[in-house]
Formats: sequence, C-alpha cells, structure tokens
Amino acid sequence: MFRKLSAEFIGTFWLIFIGSGSGILAATFAGIGIGIVGISLSAGIALMAMIYAIGGVSGGHMNPAVSVGLAVAGKFPAGHVLPYALAQVAGATAAAAMLYLIASGRAGFVAGGFGANGYGELSPGGYSLTAGFVAEVVLMVLFVFIILGSIHDRAPAGFAPISIGLSLTAINLVSIPVTNTSLNPARSTGLALFAETGALSQLWLFWVAPMAGAVIGALVWKAVGEAR
Amino acid sequence: MFRKLSAEFIGTFWLIFIGSGSGILAATFAGIGIGIVGISLSAGIALMAMIYAIGGVSGGHMNPAVSVGLAVAGKFPAGHVLPYALAQVAGATAAAAMLYLIASGRAGFVAGGFGANGYGELSPGGYSLTAGFVAEVVLMVLFVFIILGSIHDRAPAGFAPISIGLSLTAINLVSIPVTNTSLNPARSTGLALFAETGALSQLWLFWVAPMAGAVIGALVWKAVGEAR
Amino acid sequence: MFRKLSAEFIGTFWLIFIGSGSGILAATFAGIGIGIVGISLSAGIALMAMIYAIGGVSGGHMNPAVSVGLAVAGKFPAGHVLPYALAQVAGATAAAAMLYLIASGRAGFVAGGFGANGYGELSPGGYSLTAGFVAEVVLMVLFVFIILGSIHDRAPAGFAPISIGLSLTAINLVSIPVTNTSLNPARSTGLALFAETGALSQLWLFWVAPMAGAVIGALVWKAVGEAR
Amino acid sequence: MFRKLSAEFIGTFWLIFIGSGSGILAATFAGIGIGIVGISLSAGIALMAMIYAIGGVSGGHMNPAVSVGLAVAGKFPAGHVLPYALAQVAGATAAAAMLYLIASGRAGFVAGGFGANGYGELSPGGYSLTAGFVAEVVLMVLFVFIILGSIHDRAPAGFAPISIGLSLTAINLVSIPVTNTSLNPARSTGLALFAETGALSQLWLFWVAPMAGAVIGALVWKAVGEAR
Repeated sequence: MFRKLSAEFIGTFWLIFIGSGSGILAATFAGIGIGIVGISLSAGIALMAMIYAIGGVSGGHMNPAVSVGLAVAGKFPAGHVLPYALAQVAGATAAAAMLYLIASGRAGFVAGGFGANGYGELSPGGYSLTAGFVAEVVLMVLFVFIILGSIHDRAPAGFAPISIGLSLTAINLVSIPVTNTSLNPARSTGLALFAETGALSQLWLFWVAPMAGAVIGALVWKAVGEAR
Repeated sequence: MFRKLSAEFIGTFWLIFIGSGSGILAATFAGIGIGIVGISLSAGIALMAMIYAIGGVSGGHMNPAVSVGLAVAGKFPAGHVLPYALAQVAGATAAAAMLYLIASGRAGFVAGGFGANGYGELSPGGYSLTAGFVAEVVLMVLFVFIILGSIHDRAPAGFAPISIGLSLTAINLVSIPVTNTSLNPARSTGLALFAETGALSQLWLFWVAPMAGAVIGALVWKAVGEAR
Repeated sequence: MFRKLSAEFIGTFWLIFIGSGSGILAATFAGIGIGIVGISLSAGIALMAMIYAIGGVSGGHMNPAVSVGLAVAGKFPAGHVLPYALAQVAGATAAAAMLYLIASGRAGFVAGGFGANGYGELSPGGYSLTAGFVAEVVLMVLFVFIILGSIHDRAPAGFAPISIGLSLTAINLVSIPVTNTSLNPARSTGLALFAETGALSQLWLFWVAPMAGAVIGALVWKAVGEAR
Repeated sequence: MFRKLSAEFIGTFWLIFIGSGSGILAATFAGIGIGIVGISLSAGIALMAMIYAIGGVSGGHMNPAVSVGLAVAGKFPAGHVLPYALAQVAGATAAAAMLYLIASGRAGFVAGGFGANGYGELSPGGYSLTAGFVAEVVLMVLFVFIILGSIHDRAPAGFAPISIGLSLTAINLVSIPVTNTSLNPARSTGLALFAETGALSQLWLFWVAPMAGAVIGALVWKAVGEAR
C-alpha cells in the first residue's frame, strides 16, 4: 500500500505540476504563449504518460473522483478511496507549492488566481454557478464513462491511457473558459491554497460536482456498457 | 439493441458536446482562444476516445453517414441504420441543448450561428454552395475510405480509433472555413435547432452530401481495398 | 497492381488535399487561423491515418522519394518505383485541382503561391537556394532513416504509422519557413501546376533534393540499423 | 558498439535539429509562427519517432542524463555512459552547426541566443538561477521516473516511446519560459557553442541539474515502482 500511495502522490504531483504549471507559467508568455490549446495538451499528455508509468503500480488514478468512480463500478476497493484521496491531495498541494516557488523566481510575480478553479466572478469567462456546476457534472459523467469503457476487457489492450489522457485534453478545450476545468478535487484543493482570490470559498463545488459526476458516470456505464 | 442505441446516444452527445462546445465556448476566448486548431483537436480526440470506449458495444459510429457507409460496405446490418440514426440525432440535439444551457450562463450570451454548418452567407469564409457541397462529399469519401481501411483485418489491430479520430481532426483543419465542417448529419441537425441564423434552411446539404460521400467512399474501398 | 496504384492515387490525393489544403484554406483564417502548427498537424495526421488504411494494400508510400528510399533499402521492387511515382503525381495533381475548385468558391480568391514549394524569393521566409537544398536533403535523410527504423522487425509492430506520420508534422514545424516543406516531389509538382508564381521553374530542386536525401537515408540506415 | 554510437549520434542530431530548429526558424514566423506549442510538439514528436526507429539499436537515449538515469536504475551498463554521452554531444553539436548554416541563409540573420538554455538574464522570462535549477531538477526526476515506468515489463509493450516522447512535449509546455527547457546536457552544449550570448558560462547548470534529477528519479522509481 505504501508503494501505491507513493505512486499516487508522485503521479498527482506531476499531473498538477505540468497541467496547471503550463497555465501559470506559459499561457500568455511573450507573444508565443501556449493559450488554452497548450494547457489542454499539457494536462492530457501528463495524465496519459503517468498512467503508462504507474498504471501497473497503483492504477494511476491521480484524482479522488476517479477513485470514487472506479469504486462505484466495482473496479477498485472502496476502502482504498480515502487513503488514495489523501495521497492525491498531498501530491497536488506539493506541486502547487513547487510551482509557487518557481513562479516567484521572476521579478514582479503575483499569484492572483494561480490557476485555481472558480465560478461566477472567479470563472475565467464569468460563467454562473449553475453553468459551472452543470459543466463539471456532465463532463465528469462522460469522463468516467470513457475511463470504464477504455479499460474494459473488450477494448483494445494498452490504449486506455491514450483514450483517457487525451480525453482530458478535449475536456479542457471546452471548459477552461467556464471553470478553468477541474473534474479533479485534488487539483482544485492544491491550487486554491495558493490563490490570492476567494477560491477556497468556492472549493466545495469542485468536490461535489466531480464526485456526483463520477458516481453517475459509473452507474451509466454499468447500465450501458457492462452487462452483457 | 437498447444498449447499442444508448451507447450511440451517449457517444454522439459527447462528440458534439466536446467538438462543437469547444468552438462555441473557447474558440476566441480572451486572447488565449483555441482557434481552429483547438476545435479540430477536440473533435478528433473526442471521436477517438469514444470509439475506444464504446467500440465494443455499438461499434462507435456516432454519425448516421458513417452507419450508412458501413452498411454499404457490408460491415453493419442495413436494418439498424435508422434506429442508430435516430439515437445519434437525439444525442446531438441533447448535447446542443446542454451547451446552450451552459453558454447562456454568461452575461451577454448570444447564440448566433451556434456552431452550425452552412454555405454561402452562412459559410464561415463565405464559400459558395458548390464549394461546400464538393468539400463535404470529397472529404466524406476519404473519411469512409480511411474508416474501412483502418478496421480491415489487414490493418494493425487496436489502432483504428487513432486513425479515424485524428482524421476528423485533419478534416476539420481543412474545412472549418468552408462549411464549419459537418460530415455528420446528426451534428448539423442538433446545432441548427439552436442557431439563430437560417441554418435549418441549409440543413438538407449536410444530410445529402455526407450520405453521398459515404456511399461513394464505401464503394471505392470495396473496389480498391477489399477484394483480393 | 491496379489496386496498389489506385491506393497510392487516393492516398496521395488525401495527403495533399489535407496537408496542403489546410494551408491554403485555413492558415490565416479570420483570427482563428491554424498557422504552421495546424498545417503541420494536418499533414502528419493525414499521412499517419492513410498508412493505417492502405499500408496493407500498397505499402502507403504516397511519395516518389519514399518509394525510391524503400527500393534502395531493398524493401520495395525497383521496377515498381516508376508506376508508383506516376500514380502519386497524378493523385497530388488531382488534389490540387480539387482544392483550386473549392478555394475559388470564395469571392476574391487569388491562387498566388497556392502552397507550392520554393527557395529564394519563393521561400516563405526568403531563404536561399543553398539553405533550401540543404534543409530538404538533411530532413529527407532523417525521414527515410526513421521510416526504415520504424518498419523494422525489431520495432514494435503497428506503431510505424504514428512514428512516420507525426515525424512529418515535426519536419513541417521546422521547415515551412524555409521551403514551405516538400520532401515529396509529387506534392511539389501538383501544387506548382496551379501556382501563379514561378514555382514550376524551381520544381527541379524538389525532385533532386528529396531523392538524394532518400538514397542517402536508406544507405545510412543499412549501415547503422540493418546489419547485425 | 559502433552501430550503437552512430545511432545515438544520428538520433541526437535529429532531436536537436527538429526540437531546437523549430524554435530558431519558426517560433515567431510571419504571423503564423508556431510559438511554444509548436516547439513543444516538435521536440516531443521527434523524440518519440526516433525511439521507435533506433530503440532496438541503441535504446534511443539521445541524452546523457537519460543514459545516467538508466545506468543508476540498472537498465544500462555504466561503462557505456561516457561513449554514449560523447556521441550525443557530437550529434547535438553537428545539428546546431547545420541549423546555423540553414538559418544564415536568410538575409539579416542574427544568431542571438540561438535557442540555448539559460537562467537569470538569459532565461526567456527572466527567471532566477534558483527557479531554473529547481525546475530542471524536478522535471528531470519526473521524466526519468516516467521513462522507467513506461519501459517496465508491467507497462503495455510498445507504447513507451509515446509516453516518453510526449512527456517531453508536456515538459516543454511548462518550462520554456523558465530555462528554455534543457533536461538534456547534449542539447544545451550544442546550442551554447553557437549562441552569441553568455550561454556557455551558464552551461554548468544544464549538466548538473539534469544529472542530479536523473539520479534522484532513478532512485525514486526503484523505491516506488520497481521492487515488488
């Protein structure tokens, strides 16, 4: 178990360091910034590569809502969800701290929103609480559906990390303007701790909505994709 | 059959929610917009991932013209085309409705073209009916040819979703300026229902051209790639 | 043989229609243009997908210089090079004609360079003949080296189209400013026929340099990678 | 051994010619420049494709720090590290020279930083020595961890080049603003020789930090991922 939790800590560290670090450090850089396309690619590739690396160790969840979805689907012991979630939040928080250290190595650095998730006045595009909640739930339903479909025995072996990782890229391409894209309570928690905005006061949504979406997504998959 | 139709409904929902939602929500966002590159990536990745997820359930068509092409090629029962098409159009329409709900959660939202397909004055670049028709037919011929080639026994197993999905990315990179890229009557129908332009009056082209292209593409593949 | 040549005709049509059409139709479109990144992605993805589709029919060369390189390496009958090259040039020319038809469906269309390759005053960045020649030779040496390495028995089965196709993306990302990236005499010929510049008078370079590079690349691979 | 060293020379030549050439020739080109997204894609794709091509010949390291990391993990003979490193530095230097030749074929060419790595006043974003050092160490720890995880027997066979190559893309998306992204002492050396800035005086960091990160990454992987 220690090895599994270590792998989840390192994996989530990497996912947030890359997927959120790209936004913080490079999104609008000097006329050659990466924009939403670059942030989305970095997050999806980071997820894909780390699932290949640690999938055989811990499963490569890196996301408490994914662990919950897999547990609901019967693919992961429910008793492991809490320790996994703690390791994931710890990894995301450590990544945010490391990003803060690096980002503050530039003169004139201001943390600002620090890539945290938000709705209303903290939504990148000013989208309402309702829009943000709906987007996070619907996208998480679909994301967990795709995860469970891609790791199913019927799907081609070995390709699930590509399918799952790049789906996160696609999801970011749609929803960064709405909530800055969470779908991952560990991500939202780690970054909110360093944001200079009221991100912590909105953190509840980024636990509730992805968790609700993960449960629904697992149930939908079981009804549609599993039984035969 | 209920499971297959449910999978096609969910799959088409995802394809349109991502592939068209990215354009509606993020294409020109705040100096970091995703542009045609991001829309194209989102559509292709969405298709790829969902074929991995539901390919073993329903085949993962998510497109009435693809179902027709596969039926012409003898890879899909002709009697299933109509129920599949209904599930696909329903999924695309539900996705467009959900996108409308989220998009309207931003102050000052205007639906406008809402990502619908068009020619002439409704073409993004003002391309004529002829140019749009030719582009949709030619690209669909090639798309169905690639689908049939990639799922053939001779092609490496497991890679077809990458080949097919990313081909949709490549196709979008070429033809978004011309028709906003359909090749999928379900997509065109779902979005036209919410557009505030005359998109519905042009919808016929985005049923006729992709269907014609799919039939031709299947016949070309049978002549060139199948018999041996 | 008819089936193989038909596959090469269709494959090269697709490669040019997508890889060059994206540049002609979408590179600088309306503030959301795809730029060099989008052109490069479209060309590489198009190549990758079509190799998956027709690799088992004709090998999926779509490029006379690739056919020559494979023949020098002993992977393709030398006597088939000429008919393959004719089918490839015909496919590229047909694609350029179809692109011309579609592009002229927009008011105010001017063919201009029409995506053709060039050096000196016809180089996108004004690079000299020497720079263009060196770039085309060096990149073709490396491209053929990668093709032969990726299809070797020792390389993982099934991944060669990804390796080869996306290498073309990487090559475009470097050399579009220099020569608009050829490495493919069929591409250069088809587009030069429709360009309103002096592209035809520079066409010799885009036959000589890729062919020279392909021969060298095949010999280098045989010395370094083959014998053991 | 001659074949292995030749493969590493050619592989590193390609990696630098593409991954750094894209930045030098195309990053800010004429309104359609590739920016950090394009540089990152080119570097990662180049690495991925060449691992497929020469993985079976030399292992496809193309980076002295990777060779060190693999040696620490017991996956590569320690006695081969030095000859590999020499071949890699030679390949990177030859690539930089070839890029210089091509780049100087444009009127008004100025070498400037020539894509070299740096910190402080030579950091693209003006990041401090500390920030640069930390970024290079942390990212190299994670990169070597992913390499070792992806080539492990437990990981799906054949996918490691995708995981490793595209991780380099993700890493570039984060750290180009900080140090212009090294993680590869051969890259830093080859380009510093042609830069007209003080890059050579900062070269020590781009040997020390990646090497330290590689050792740590290999040890972390052995503790977390290996023993079971």
